[in-house]
Amino acid sequence: MKIRLPQRGWLFDLDGTIYLGERLIRGADEAIAALRADNRRIVFLSNKPLETRADYARKLTRLGIPAAADDVLNSSLVLARHLARLDPGAPVFAIGEPPLVAELTAHGFEVRPDHHVRWVVIAFDRTFDYAKLNVALQAVRRSNARLIATNPDRTCPVEGGEIPDCAGMIAAVEAVTGRTVEAIVGKPSPIILEVALAALGLDARDAVIVGDRLETDMTMGKRLGLATVLVLTGVTAASDPAIAEVAPDLVLPSVRELLIS
Amino acid sequence: MKIRLPQRGWLFDLDGTIYLGERLIRGADEAIAALRADNRRIVFLSNKPLETRADYARKLTRLGIPAAADDVLNSSLVLARHLARLDPGAPVFAIGEPPLVAELTAHGFEVRPDHHVRWVVIAFDRTFDYAKLNVALQAVRRSNARLIATNPDRTCPVEGGEIPDCAGMIAAVEAVTGRTVEAIVGKPSPIILEVALAALGLDARDAVIVGDRLETDMTMGKRLGLATVLVLTGVTAASDPAIAEVAPDLVLPSVRELLIS
Repeated sequence: MKIRLPQRGWLFDLDGTIYLGERLIRGADEAIAALRADNRRIVFLSNKPLETRADYARKLTRLGIPAAADDVLNSSLVLARHLARLDPGAPVFAIGEPPLVAELTAHGFEVRPDHHVRWVVIAFDRTFDYAKLNVALQAVRRSNARLIATNPDRTCPVEGGEIPDCAGMIAAVEAVTGRTVEAIVGKPSPIILEVALAALGLDARDAVIVGDRLETDMTMGKRLGLATVLVLTGVTAASDPAIAEVAPDLVLPSVRELLIS
Repeated sequence: MKIRLPQRGWLFDLDGTIYLGERLIRGADEAIAALRADNRRIVFLSNKPLETRADYARKLTRLGIPAAADDVLNSSLVLARHLARLDPGAPVFAIGEPPLVAELTAHGFEVRPDHHVRWVVIAFDRTFDYAKLNVALQAVRRSNARLIATNPDRTCPVEGGEIPDCAGMIAAVEAVTGRTVEAIVGKPSPIILEVALAALGLDARDAVIVGDRLETDMTMGKRLGLATVLVLTGVTAASDPAIAEVAPDLVLPSVRELLIS
């Protein structure tokens, strides 16, 4: 078995690329095993700040792709690492759930319940409420706090539908503070790719991003100079005219075809 | 004593025009009394959907301007009257506090706790939370509900500062639903003036709006063809270059100068 591309670093989107909900995409386990057997380095990327990296690792392992927490980068980890470069140890207020707060604490930030902070961190938060919105406003008004967010998604797919995602929290905070979020570190921001490349210790030219979305996975990959592989197992149909516009380096039916048998 | 303008209908902004917080603006009581003595019809306008009309009437009365609930129009009443013309008796989901819900119920709407509605009504709501945001999203996704809101204010001034206002709730709902609010009935929307004129039974040409804000009170008054009186007791300074641009019919130091002694 041969692998279609020579790069050492491989960044994989998850939902739509490796699995669909709770079902592994056929051959994804084989493809990952073959890459690993060839000593390629792999990172799985997720925009969701809700689950921990260990949660993702357990899910992948359960579906047949043995993985450790370190193999996964999600937007809360990316945010914590990015902010640790900008303002290490800063006091922050977090609009987010316990896994986000744990990630911030683990990276040395002082997570406070009040407005005496330098940053308001905004994430997908199913416990978002008016009191948090008010602390965010006071942090900007009284402490001139800056705003940073995990992911720009409008909604999050769930069993049988979708629920409000981080865009709702971002919009509320921006509307009342009159201030714009400085960075949204998740896809399609190049920040998540930069953090992933740093984790792999590789240059963009020696890396590939594999995903099912043109406007996030492919566009940000091209912008940073990674090789790009579009798979058609997720939201993009083979007939989509935007494929020619974005022009990924490869368009494959699924990750399985990364291998030439 | 003579009144400077001949119109029969008088619409007054409250904060910055009639009172400042808990203090009556000097001479406001005299001016209102003189207008009433001359059989002019008066309505007080407020963008705030929190207090009831009776609350405002009590405050005015306490400050020396006897008023009944019917003398006041706030954005929750305007929304209920406006929506009653568009879709009488419709099932609605309300992001709002009890006075808003009471106004909607009083106007014959079926206020429901779930997404089986034709409208999502969005107001300044200090009990706003993720669960409400989710019902709004499901109402749009599953019931194709339409969106309407009370007021566009970013923040609401309170003792010692400001707190998040309706713009936060509107932005969150718009961001997660991908749908735009069809109407925001409060100032600077002409809807609040239309409802006020209907309440007075007068045409715009026979009415005056008196307020302290160029971008709301004066601009919407001019757009609808009312006479406009800017008072300098609120947010607008006499030196503001925008006064010449907006060109109110009269610019007065305060409502007191509506009278020529």
